[in-house]
Amino acid sequence: MSPVKEPPTVPASIPPTNAGPARTSHASRGELPVVLAMRHAGTRTLTLRYEVQGPAAAPVVFVAGGISAHRHVSASAEFPEKGWADELVGEGRTLDPAHRRVLAFDFVGADGKLDAPIDPADQADAIVALLDALEIERLQGFVGYSYGALVGLQLAVRHPQRLQRLVAVSGAHRAHPYAAAWRALQRKAVALGQLQCADAQGLSLARQFAMLSYRTQEEFAERFDALPEVVNGRVRVAAEDYLDAVGAQYVARTPVNAFLRLSESIDLQNVDPAAVGVPTTVIAVEGDRLVPLADLVGLVEGLGRLGTLRILRSPYGHDAFLKETDRIDALLSHALHSADGAGDSA
Amino acid sequence: MSPVKEPPTVPASIPPTNAGPARTSHASRGELPVVLAMRHAGTRTLTLRYEVQGPAAAPVVFVAGGISAHRHVSASAEFPEKGWADELVGEGRTLDPAHRRVLAFDFVGADGKLDAPIDPADQADAIVALLDALEIERLQGFVGYSYGALVGLQLAVRHPQRLQRLVAVSGAHRAHPYAAAWRALQRKAVALGQLQCADAQGLSLARQFAMLSYRTQEEFAERFDALPEVVNGRVRVAAEDYLDAVGAQYVARTPVNAFLRLSESIDLQNVDPAAVGVPTTVIAVEGDRLVPLADLVGLVEGLGRLGTLRILRSPYGHDAFLKETDRIDALLSHALHSADGAGDSA
Repeated sequence: MSPVKEPPTVPASIPPTNAGPARTSHASRGELPVVLAMRHAGTRTLTLRYEVQGPAAAPVVFVAGGISAHRHVSASAEFPEKGWADELVGEGRTLDPAHRRVLAFDFVGADGKLDAPIDPADQADAIVALLDALEIERLQGFVGYSYGALVGLQLAVRHPQRLQRLVAVSGAHRAHPYAAAWRALQRKAVALGQLQCADAQGLSLARQFAMLSYRTQEEFAERFDALPEVVNGRVRVAAEDYLDAVGAQYVARTPVNAFLRLSESIDLQNVDPAAVGVPTTVIAVEGDRLVPLADLVGLVEGLGRLGTLRILRSPYGHDAFLKETDRIDALLSHALHSADGAGDSA
Repeated sequence: MSPVKEPPTVPASIPPTNAGPARTSHASRGELPVVLAMRHAGTRTLTLRYEVQGPAAAPVVFVAGGISAHRHVSASAEFPEKGWADELVGEGRTLDPAHRRVLAFDFVGADGKLDAPIDPADQADAIVALLDALEIERLQGFVGYSYGALVGLQLAVRHPQRLQRLVAVSGAHRAHPYAAAWRALQRKAVALGQLQCADAQGLSLARQFAMLSYRTQEEFAERFDALPEVVNGRVRVAAEDYLDAVGAQYVARTPVNAFLRLSESIDLQNVDPAAVGVPTTVIAVEGDRLVPLADLVGLVEGLGRLGTLRILRSPYGHDAFLKETDRIDALLSHALHSADGAGDSA
């Protein structure tokens, strides 16, 4: 579900806890105008769009996903549309909105209106502006996956007093040069499309290339084992229908600039692990083509006594966070357990 | 060195062994018109372009490389331009043109004039037509790397009497579905370029994506460790200069259709390993992103008593054949040694 397709938002002046009578899921949305001093783009006036679900008094966990994630993490009575991490937020899960307050936002740049380099540090500063506006002194936890993990690391360096614990899944202190090259070529595919107003085709191709980086050989070998066909004089391989669908689906919900600027943002990541100021659980996926295990081992080494490493093996590679939800939930439970019962976090 | 840039060829009617007085390197070129019954493209009249180097009486080894390789394998007195495998063919090497006659050709489709699906089996049939014309009854060996290995496997199935031994490096009996998807997206990059008369940009992008599949994370981590820069408001990562150069170089020497049709051809590969009729050494590179070790283990299992597996570990991945030349030479020496002294092969 794209931010641009969501229902009208609650005005920023009404905090979510006042948005209506108390209900179990208690989800609300808001928009917040902020002035942000950005690292590469000067000072900008932006609108932050957030969603929050869970009791007002519960400890708050911020959830941030990959560059195509958004504020609608999971379905609720108020917002029944499918969320991007429905399997991780719900009854009986570590992130159960009956017991924890789950907060998320649309990344700065996600609406495609900001055509300038966006540093992951800018996202962390924007999150602090949001916490201030919502009067959240301290998060119990920040769970970041992929780009969200980059942002979490920035938050833990720049504003360590604002979170008790970071869980960083499949994201590191620096982009791997090979993954950076892969993303740069995706951006070139977009540029090639833009050359002559074929923006959609360029973005679709970029997304398809990205999808290869998110998944593994194992998965493709299982799903797309059929021999290629010759169709209209061209060879068409088994995965092409799937990839075309992936591209079309992405184009329908993603402004070109949002993709370009958030893709760039991943490559701007530059954190000194020793500067991280909060206990951090790093979850690595063996077989992740974008974020090699070795890089996350390096991150944890740099974190010193604040760092804990958990390793998953998954045929879903970089996308394991969204697929291996039972195992991820168990890891989240362990990571957030130590922070439980801290009444000052909401 | 591209076929299109080479000097005028020797007429096909003059066999290479009569092309001039005997010299040490004794290299010659020729063109041969053939009528080829193709698997997906009907019967076509084509021109085969070959080059041969070494004494007329020496055993003949056919060398075939990746889809961008060509007939000029190595520099010689007659053709001093750089070859695509100079490090593997020369004095003191297993493929020493003083002792072996090295034969190669431009793949069918390499001139870009054949705009139709080309099966690797078609290449094998073309090679047999060439051997017939050159009156070569039997090759001592066929050394195929990447696409060349696919063609070698086809030759060993369809015409086993024409070769004593096959050495298949980094190429299998079937394309891996993930690698096939990767190539399909390269072809889409070309199509996106063609959509807008930006053929060169599309082909350049395709080549850059291909290059990522040929190399490894390790190599990129070593070569391109610098932080990205913001140039003209865009993020530019460390590998981009290199990749741009790779793309431009390729575009300058490759017809778009040659790339498209030979890329497709890889995906058309479909050989039953049990049908291979000659002793075969399979060389696999651990860390090859295109041809996983597991697929070559499967190939060797299918070959039964005719198969031998050798495994290299290299940071150059799929391109190890062109980079780990000392180790490849040692493996070739071992593989071709058993076939040595067979006077009937030239």
